[in-house]
Formats: sequence, structure tokens, C-alpha cells
Amino acid sequence: MAGSTLGIIYRITTWGESHGPGLGVVVDGCPAGLALNANDIQSYLDRRKPGQSRISTPRKEADAVEILSGVFEGKTTGAPISLLVRNTSQRSGDYSEIASYYRPGHADYTFDQKYGFRDYRGGGRSSGRETIGRVAAGAIAAKALYAFGIRLTAYTKSIGPVSINPNSFDPAAILETPTAMPDREASVHAEKYLADCMKDYDSSGGIIECVIDGVPAGLGDPVFEKLDANLAKAIMSIGAVKAVEIGDGIEVSTRRGSENNDPFHMQNGRIVKSTNHAGGILGGISDGSQILLRAHIKPTPSIFSPQNTVNRDGEDITVSIKGRHDPVIVPRAVVVVESMAAITLLDALLVNAGSKMEHLAAIYKN
Amino acid sequence: MAGSTLGIIYRITTWGESHGPGLGVVVDGCPAGLALNANDIQSYLDRRKPGQSRISTPRKEADAVEILSGVFEGKTTGAPISLLVRNTSQRSGDYSEIASYYRPGHADYTFDQKYGFRDYRGGGRSSGRETIGRVAAGAIAAKALYAFGIRLTAYTKSIGPVSINPNSFDPAAILETPTAMPDREASVHAEKYLADCMKDYDSSGGIIECVIDGVPAGLGDPVFEKLDANLAKAIMSIGAVKAVEIGDGIEVSTRRGSENNDPFHMQNGRIVKSTNHAGGILGGISDGSQILLRAHIKPTPSIFSPQNTVNRDGEDITVSIKGRHDPVIVPRAVVVVESMAAITLLDALLVNAGSKMEHLAAIYKN
Amino acid sequence: MAGSTLGIIYRITTWGESHGPGLGVVVDGCPAGLALNANDIQSYLDRRKPGQSRISTPRKEADAVEILSGVFEGKTTGAPISLLVRNTSQRSGDYSEIASYYRPGHADYTFDQKYGFRDYRGGGRSSGRETIGRVAAGAIAAKALYAFGIRLTAYTKSIGPVSINPNSFDPAAILETPTAMPDREASVHAEKYLADCMKDYDSSGGIIECVIDGVPAGLGDPVFEKLDANLAKAIMSIGAVKAVEIGDGIEVSTRRGSENNDPFHMQNGRIVKSTNHAGGILGGISDGSQILLRAHIKPTPSIFSPQNTVNRDGEDITVSIKGRHDPVIVPRAVVVVESMAAITLLDALLVNAGSKMEHLAAIYKN
Amino acid sequence: MAGSTLGIIYRITTWGESHGPGLGVVVDGCPAGLALNANDIQSYLDRRKPGQSRISTPRKEADAVEILSGVFEGKTTGAPISLLVRNTSQRSGDYSEIASYYRPGHADYTFDQKYGFRDYRGGGRSSGRETIGRVAAGAIAAKALYAFGIRLTAYTKSIGPVSINPNSFDPAAILETPTAMPDREASVHAEKYLADCMKDYDSSGGIIECVIDGVPAGLGDPVFEKLDANLAKAIMSIGAVKAVEIGDGIEVSTRRGSENNDPFHMQNGRIVKSTNHAGGILGGISDGSQILLRAHIKPTPSIFSPQNTVNRDGEDITVSIKGRHDPVIVPRAVVVVESMAAITLLDALLVNAGSKMEHLAAIYKN
Repeated sequence: MAGSTLGIIYRITTWGESHGPGLGVVVDGCPAGLALNANDIQSYLDRRKPGQSRISTPRKEADAVEILSGVFEGKTTGAPISLLVRNTSQRSGDYSEIASYYRPGHADYTFDQKYGFRDYRGGGRSSGRETIGRVAAGAIAAKALYAFGIRLTAYTKSIGPVSINPNSFDPAAILETPTAMPDREASVHAEKYLADCMKDYDSSGGIIECVIDGVPAGLGDPVFEKLDANLAKAIMSIGAVKAVEIGDGIEVSTRRGSENNDPFHMQNGRIVKSTNHAGGILGGISDGSQILLRAHIKPTPSIFSPQNTVNRDGEDITVSIKGRHDPVIVPRAVVVVESMAAITLLDALLVNAGSKMEHLAAIYKN
Repeated sequence: MAGSTLGIIYRITTWGESHGPGLGVVVDGCPAGLALNANDIQSYLDRRKPGQSRISTPRKEADAVEILSGVFEGKTTGAPISLLVRNTSQRSGDYSEIASYYRPGHADYTFDQKYGFRDYRGGGRSSGRETIGRVAAGAIAAKALYAFGIRLTAYTKSIGPVSINPNSFDPAAILETPTAMPDREASVHAEKYLADCMKDYDSSGGIIECVIDGVPAGLGDPVFEKLDANLAKAIMSIGAVKAVEIGDGIEVSTRRGSENNDPFHMQNGRIVKSTNHAGGILGGISDGSQILLRAHIKPTPSIFSPQNTVNRDGEDITVSIKGRHDPVIVPRAVVVVESMAAITLLDALLVNAGSKMEHLAAIYKN
Repeated sequence: MAGSTLGIIYRITTWGESHGPGLGVVVDGCPAGLALNANDIQSYLDRRKPGQSRISTPRKEADAVEILSGVFEGKTTGAPISLLVRNTSQRSGDYSEIASYYRPGHADYTFDQKYGFRDYRGGGRSSGRETIGRVAAGAIAAKALYAFGIRLTAYTKSIGPVSINPNSFDPAAILETPTAMPDREASVHAEKYLADCMKDYDSSGGIIECVIDGVPAGLGDPVFEKLDANLAKAIMSIGAVKAVEIGDGIEVSTRRGSENNDPFHMQNGRIVKSTNHAGGILGGISDGSQILLRAHIKPTPSIFSPQNTVNRDGEDITVSIKGRHDPVIVPRAVVVVESMAAITLLDALLVNAGSKMEHLAAIYKN
Repeated sequence: MAGSTLGIIYRITTWGESHGPGLGVVVDGCPAGLALNANDIQSYLDRRKPGQSRISTPRKEADAVEILSGVFEGKTTGAPISLLVRNTSQRSGDYSEIASYYRPGHADYTFDQKYGFRDYRGGGRSSGRETIGRVAAGAIAAKALYAFGIRLTAYTKSIGPVSINPNSFDPAAILETPTAMPDREASVHAEKYLADCMKDYDSSGGIIECVIDGVPAGLGDPVFEKLDANLAKAIMSIGAVKAVEIGDGIEVSTRRGSENNDPFHMQNGRIVKSTNHAGGILGGISDGSQILLRAHIKPTPSIFSPQNTVNRDGEDITVSIKGRHDPVIVPRAVVVVESMAAITLLDALLVNAGSKMEHLAAIYKN
């Protein structure tokens, strides 16, 4: 089925395999008149690019984006924006062996079951490189949102047992530490932990958090297109994510109502919430306060230590995966989470434009 | 925007407010030829009906379903199935006061912001009664899935600090305890805890778990219609859910790859996983093992103890909510979680029918 | 598959069979704040009601609509609007015979082939009564459009060989003649022609035309959600329509470019077209001039004269259809065409709200 | 809005402008396991390629397709198939003048109105080159349909006043005549007529017909996803199409029921229709007989003779369009019509796979 398209009005369609000619995305429904150039997109792609630190795969990819359509004289035209990134570092030889067996924690087995066979070179469509299209589309969405005062910030909250200290929160560190942690000290600890993992031929999981500021109240559509529901889908659709939380998330299950409700009060003539346990969403609609979500990321399934599995001939075997793999998915996935949140939010903003007669009257003067 | 429709082929559209004439759902795309009668649906609705125990609102509703279309001579015809439940216990008087202020933890404020005004009688569209349509549609989906050997079981995993003991798991208890816990002893403890909450004019959160057995490998469509992504959306779209986990969920973030990967091995000539940390889904596609998910539910926001808030005149006030409210949402939401999972799974099953030439050849003999 | 839902933002879902308990529609995505009551809808339904003249089936149906949700204190709330019309004149006995054979020109055979069996009482889902939901949803759309100065007018252009005279065009006659012709003299001729058809146990086809005034330029989305493409789908989805024309339609195929192009010129400081061969749509986008479309309707397939067909036992037989049938579908289908055009246009208007940064800036002031 | 995507399960997303870097399409939802290579697609693209005869624009474009994803070892994998055609003959200089005024019959004015500005080089997104993506996607759909015995044949039925003679129907001529007429004599007449048009600095309209053989009964979904409704949308979405007919089309409006109904009879143990006025579709569902549709194409709006129009400064002016233009759109649009029909039909076939329990039982053995 056509599962590669997401969104109602801001609609993205990603394509491409890690070892084919390239990957890309068609971004349709971007409002016309947004200033846009390749650098806007490239700066986002560079945040997920491999080969940038010791805790990232040594595979080098330029991941240079080409805008094939939809931009004219520096502005979006309203036409679909087609973006292409050519693959340049394909060493299919590294992967030829894995054609014959099912890697634990990977989608090899399920793709074979679903489609009858699979593109076994590097995971095909289930490769992490699939997120290139997401990030390119997210860069555009983030730029459009910025025009309305909406800013997204995602970062690594924890890697294995190492968490950031909220009191040491330093936004500048997100782009400067190899872990994408907004806490330089925690980042050093996390790097050490990852070095241990690598020494053990092993990998680590972690948590990504994303906050969104400046969101107007009113985005999200009851009852199935709720903002939190669509954020959950967008985030859970990222490979390796196994849990999504909004606001205080899992903590609410052990709370009482008196602890969990956010009182309202007046502040400078505006209604605001005194706390934000809800994470900026009530009844599936943004409430004007900061939106906050978390994604729980599993450890990289490609590990070098021996594992039991089965080959295509139906024999029990033991394998040691080779190749170039990140010991942790989290740092490079931070911009993917931010992108998926941006895509979801821009779509909600566009859809909401038609929600009440008052909005329409502002556009269609009779 | 049209947010009341969910699904690609098995597509449901819910409607109705808690204090209007009634609520219902149109179920479109149900395969023709499924044996179906009102009892199949009523038995599901009865599981979410209020007034059945001390820990449920004393409001009495028959919640009797009428099938208005789509069933002929005891079988679905392929036409849309329209289901109607009339509201019978509307005491709008109870709610007249809340028109004037914003209840903390409720969607009053966001609906006003989005639409300019709101149906203030009992929460309107954000009422828990909205789930009637979901459950009715879920009952049909569950029956269709059952025909292919797929069985869903949802239950209360915890209420506040009280969790079930996996070693005392008793499926029969789910329908027999007022908490919907599959552990009679834990249920007694939870009831005591809820009695305390009520005495304190307070409420409690909790966790619902859902397991799905018999799912064939291959359901779910990369990369945005992944089975886990659609389950996350479906579950998060239920009011009060603040986190969704698949398989081991949040635990993966502190794990190493060697602990988290599920090895494959041969068993009676079939490929099976030795463990199931993944919760039955790899790369967004079902892997043939048990699917497992959890929803974290916030405490009922309607509590009787005094709370600070703001009224529509922009004044800070203190309110004590009146009316008939559940001290915990969880037990009645169990069947809602089960229903949303069933709806999502049946849609994935139908969509997957067109996934490969081999499937099509089985249907369209040339 | 779920084929009963239409539209992106203004989204309607119809349901119901001619001989079940009732029919209806869920209208989702209607902008909040539109004044609406049952009369607004009933006046449209009354235009398609049977039993109003000699050239309409003598079957009497009140077709009284009940609003079940989505309207509060006389205004739409943004929630789905559920509308119900109970069937009251079900004489299933009239139809019991047709269970055994396939009526020529009807969908009996194709429903059996698609679904394995069918609701044979009066055509089930392929009955003309299915259009009740369309008309109810169209009435709401037309009212919303009217708030922005957009007015739709559909009428009968011809019945069999009898066409209206454009020089005698009298809009008042549309609601006053039994033919829905805007030409009283032509209407008399058409009635005579239909009397002849009835005498011959036969039926007649005809043409419906719809004009839409006041449409702002800019509605419709290249390249698949073009306004003319969506109008074509909406109109062709009405049973009995076999051709759809936009503007000069079929005549363009024998024209030269110099005859068919519409020159632009300035008029009172505005750009206008000097002619309107295009029917108000260029490149799939409304151009600010009158939109014009035509639907070609086949003769009622239920005729009393003997016809050859096949029964379910696979035997060649001759049948004479009984029951209560219109000798022509056209007059009662006029409001259906108008409704489908209104539904399509409102959706395009809502979707277009997010088309450019300028629109969004008018709504989301930063 | 995102208008560049079409289809439910077989879903295509086209992108690209005539004077940007290239054009293309992402084909998502193609069943896995279909043998496919670039030649399958190129042979379709070559049928719409310019510069192949005197009655086609002299502009030369290789229109060479590159498969960027979704095919592995000669078979589709179930992943999205991304196809790219680079533009090679861009002479933007030819078009610089038209930036300043609105060409009659073109979408210059409506794009400006909708988006605030436009890509004025050669029509941007409303260029005929946009159909490259459609044809590439249609080639794949046609190949998949062929595997189930379904064959599509489109051809020119008329150009201006010159129509084919049904008695001289020669399928081989479609690919051999410059007009794509299946009648060599009529083609010669049409070429002469077009030579006259060109001499007069004018252009001509025409009619394309498409027949589809081997379609199983049961495709198409009441009531809005009817096969004829979706065909009408798909065909009307092609630029220059102003009317769509199914079966006998416009002729039904002057017919009587006794003339228009298609009787059924038994033939070799199967139910068949004695005539096919309906064009293979009853109640929106394929009936097993030949599907037949017609598209009425307007004359090329780009003509060299002087025309009145308005420039962007709001002045009345007279223009003579320059550049390289086809005197008739029809011959090159034949393969576009065939492609859109194929895309629509394959989607209906895939969607129908989930229509009844019997189909599902053939796939999901319990």
C-alpha cells in the first residue's frame, strides 16, 4: 500500500533505498511565497549526516540536496517541491552476506514476509537513510513555521543511563556536542558510556525530547486528527522509536487529578496555564503553551557481538554483523524527531485555516 | 477540518455529543459477508457503559445500539454500517455552570480558542461518551479479525500505585472485576485506593495494556503507515492518553542492543523469535509474534476539590466541579483501547491484501 | 472499500439503503459559527422528495431530517453534523421478485459480483434514495458558500428531445415547474413527452445544467485536485450520469483555438474574460467568472415494458418491472447536481485557505 | 494544498515544471514482485515525446527516464518507485515575454491569483510536460494490469471535423500514424486539416477514446469511489479536457429506457450483456464487459494569430504568441488518457482485494 505519504495539506512523500541511486522527498502543499533555498534544507540534512564523530558510523556521505522543482526566483510557488540526494558511499559488498539471513532487531524478516523478497542491501527501505526525505521536508516545514513565530528544539535527553541535568541546559550545546545533548558535561559522560558499548561490540538506546514554542492555541482536529495523535504517529513512524510521550507522559498514570491538572490564571490580560503537565495540548488541540514530547529509541540492532538467528534455508545459525554502524541512533535521530514534529505542526496549522467562519472571512472578503 | 474519520479501507466516522440527541459511527469498508447482529456490538458497548460499579459514574445510560444500515439478512453487505446510540440521561442542568469558566485539564479552553465558542454541556465532543462510536466500530473489527484467528485482549495493568502481578494473570477476571484487572487481588487493592481518592475528592491515573494474538506476519506499510505508527495514533487519539508504548517501550532507552534484540530460531519448521522485546512489530510490519502495547491514562480531570481557574470574563476564580464523574478513567477505557487496536489492525489487514502480485493472483485468476 | 466519504476538509460520509431503517450523512469539517437549522436542510430535501407531481414516482416519503449533532444554539460548532432521515414508505413486497433476477440497466448484477450477494430491496445502496445524504450535505455547503457571495443554480436543460430556450430563461420557474425547467413553455412540452413515454411503458433521459456565480479566482489545486476534476468526479458519482461537461464541453473538440480562447480585458479596473467558453476554470483553478457544468442523465432503467434478462439460476427470462418509478430521473436529480457542486466548491474554498503565506498571515498574526 | 497525489493504494505523486531541472513521479503502492525495467516505462514516454512529426512541436526532448528506487533485481519491491526525467531543451528566452501578460486559454492568470505569482517559464506546472509523470506511472499500472489480462487501448477518435471510420478500425495504425488514429485514411485527412490550421496560425481540438478489455466484474466502490467517477476525475484532471463520457455518454440524454438498457443473456454458461450502452460500468462497478470512455480536448491555446489580452500592469494589449507549440494536443495526449485510465483501474483492482470475506480468506488462511 502507499505508505510513503504523510499529511493532509502539507503532504510529504519520501522514497529511496540506502543502496539505490539516491533518496528524496516530494513536498506538496507548501504555501506559496515562502523564501527557500538549498541551504535551508542542507543545514538540516547536515545535522543527520554520518561520519561526523567517533560515535557515528565512519561511512561518509555528502548528502547534498538538489531542488528539482517548486521553487522559482527564491520562493516556493505552491507547486510540489522535489528534493533529491544521491547516494555516494555504497559499498554493497559489505552487505552481500546479510542477504542470506535475518538480522535480529531488523526488518529483514518482516519485509520478506510482506513482499515475498527484499532489497537486502543495507536494509533497503528500512534503512536509517530513509529519514533523509523526512529531514529535508522538516527543514521546509520548520522554516514556514518560523514565519509565524513557532520554533522547534529537539535534543538528546539521555543515552543509556546518562541523562542531561535540566539545571545545566545549554541550547548551544545541542549542535556542538557529538551526542546532541544540551549539557556538555552529560555529553562527555555519554561518550564514555558509548565507548564502553563499542568496546563490548554492543550499542545503546536513549531518549530524545522536543519542545515547540510559540504555537498558537487551536491547532489539531478532534477526534482522530488530534495534534497529539498525529505527533505520536509521526514520531512512532521513525524506525527504532518504541514509545512516545506527550507532556508528563508515563508519569500521569501514577498521579492524582489534583496533581496533574494545570490550573489557569490571568497574566497580563491573557489566559495562561500555571503549570504544563499536559505538554501544551488539551483535548487534542494546542493550548498556547509549550508543546513537549519525548521519543524512546531502541539501541542500534546492528551489533558486532555474535547473535543467534535463522538463515533463508531455515537453519539456526550464529552471526556477527559487519559493516559501519552507529553505536547509538539517538544523536543523528534528534533532527529527525524535530523534522517530524515540524511537518505535523505545519499541516495542523494549514488545516486549521479553514476551521471557522471568522478565519475564512479574513481571507475571502465578500 | 474533518477529523472524525479514521482508516484507509476500514474507515470509521464518529459523531455526537454527550448532551445532544445521540452519538454514533458510520463504519465503511467492512468486508461483505461477515455475520453481524446488534448483540455483537452491544456486548462491547456494555463494557464501557457507566453506572456499573462504585468506581464508575452513577450516571445511568442504556447505550442501546441501533443498526441503521449495511446489514442484510444477518450479514454485512459491503455498504456503510451506520450505528446510533440515543442519549437518555442528559441532565444539562448539572453542566450549566461550567459554561462560564474553563475547567483545568479539560478541553473547554482549547475548543473555545479553536472554534470561537463551544457546546459546553458535558464537554460536547471531548466527552468520554465520544468513544461510543469507537467501541461500536471496534466490536465489528474485532469480529472480522476473529474470523482470521486474531484475538485482542486489553486490561487494566495498573491504577495509581497498584499494579497487577503477572504471575496471577487471570483473563476471566478482566470482565468480572470492576477495575478490568486480570488479577482479583490487585483489583481489590485498586478499589481501596480509589475509595481513598474519592474520599479526598480526587481521582487517579493508570495503565492499560493490550495484547493481540494470531496476527500474521506482514501487516503494516512502511514508512508512514507502519503498524506501530498507526497504533500509536489510534491509541493517543483517545482522550486522556498521554503516552503509548510498543513492546518493551520506554525500557529500550536504557538497554544495550545485545539485551534488546530478539534472536530468531527454528521451531517446528517455522521461524520464531526467542524473545519479544519488540512487541510483535519490526520495521513497522507485524512479525507473527504477539503484539503488545500500553497506554498511559491521566487521572480524571473532573475532581470535586477546589481548583484555581479563569472564567470567560477573564477573572481568576476558584471552582469545585460538581456532577457525576468516574474517579478513574481506566476501567471503562479498556474496551476503547481494545477497539482502537482492532480498528487499526483490520485496516492494515485489508490494505495488505493488495501488497504483492502473489496475493492478487489468489483473487484475480486470469 | 470505504467509498462513502468525499472531500478533504469539508468531508461527507453518506449511508443508508432505500428499504432499511433510514438514510443519512455525517458532515465533518463544516466551519464553526455558521447559522444552521433543520429548515435550511429540509428545504433542499423537499426539492428531491418523491410524489410531488405526475412525472414523479407516486411513492410518498416525508423525508424529514433530524439533526443529531454538531449544531448548538443555532450555530455549527465545528463538530461533525450527523443527519438522519427515517424511511417511512417501505413496501418491500413490491421488490421481492427482483431478488431473483438482474434488472437491465441496474446495479443488481455488479453488486452481486462485487460483494457475493446484495440487499435486493429497491436497489439497496444503488437506489436513488442514497442521494438524500448528498442533498442534506449540499444544503449546508450551499449555505456556507452563500456567506461568501457564492450562489449555485441548477436546472433541467432538456428532457428527451425537449430543450429549454435560453431566451425564455426564468429562474423562478425552476422551483415551480414539475420538470425543474427554467422555461415554462418548454416544461409543458416536456411533460407531454413524458406522458407519451409513460403510455409506452418507457422512460426518458435528459440534461441538467448548473451555474455558479460569485466564485473567487484561485479555487482548485493542480494537478489532481483541480476544480473541474473534482466537479467531474462529484457529478459522475451520481447514479445515472454518463457524461460531464465543463463550459462549452464537447463543443471544444471541433473548435479552433482562435474560437475557443477567452480573451482578457480590463473592466472597471478589474481583469475579466470577454467570453467564457472555459466555464470559469483555467488550469483547474477558478478564474473569477461564472462556473458552468452539465450532466447527461440516462433514462430511468426501471421500465414497465418487457425486457430480456437472466435470473440467478442462469436462465434467460423476460421480465416486466413493477413498482413505483419516475419516468425521468432529471427533475429530482437537479438538486443533487447542485448539492454535489456545492460540496465540491466549499471543500476547494476551505483547502485553498492554506495555499499562500499571505492567507496564513491574515489568520495567524505573529 | 497537496494536489499532486492521486490514488488510494496505487498512489502517484507527480512533480516538476517544464523549465526546471526535470519532472518526475513517485509511484507508491505498486504490488511487489512485478517485473519492471526502464524500457517498460520509456516506451510509454516515447509515445508522448515531442518532435516526432510535422504536427508536433519541433522542440526535441529525449525524455529519458531514470528509475531511482523501488526496483531490485528486475522486480518491484513494494517500496515507492521514484522516476526522474531531466529537462534538456529549455529555451527560457522564448518565454521571457509571457511573464508580463496573461495568455488567453492558459492558466497564467489563475496561477497568479491563487499563489500570488507564478513560474512563467513555459507554463510551469500547467505545462503539458507535467503529464510525463502521469505517463510514467501509467506505464507501470498498465504492465501490472496486463498480468491479470486487462488491456487498455486509447486512440484519436477525431481531430476538428475529421473522425475515424469505425469500419476501418486498424489498431496497428495508432502507433504508426502521426495523429494516433486507428484509421490511416482519416489520419491523412486530419493531417491536411491541421496543415490548414497551422497556415492560419491556428489550432484544433479533438476527441480521444479509450477502451479497456478484460476487466473483471466488481471493480469500483459505491458511492463516491465509483469506477466511472474516478475515471472522470482522472481524465478531467488532464489539462485541456473539457468533457468526459462513459459508454454512450451524451447520447443517453435523448434516449428512452427501452433503447438504453443493456439486456442480459446467457452465453456459454456465463452472464453477458447483449449490448454495451453503459460502457462496462453499472452502479459505479465494472460489469465484466468492455469499458469505454471519451475525452473531449480543447484546441491548443497557444496560437500565433493576434489575440486580445491584459498585461500585469492592467493594460489592454494585443499579443501574438511565439515559441514551439503543437497545432493539436490530441495525438500526444492519447497515451496520457490511457495512462490515467490504467492508474485508476489498478487502484480500483487493489482496493477491491479487501471487499469481501471470501477474497480475504483466499489470502489469509486461518
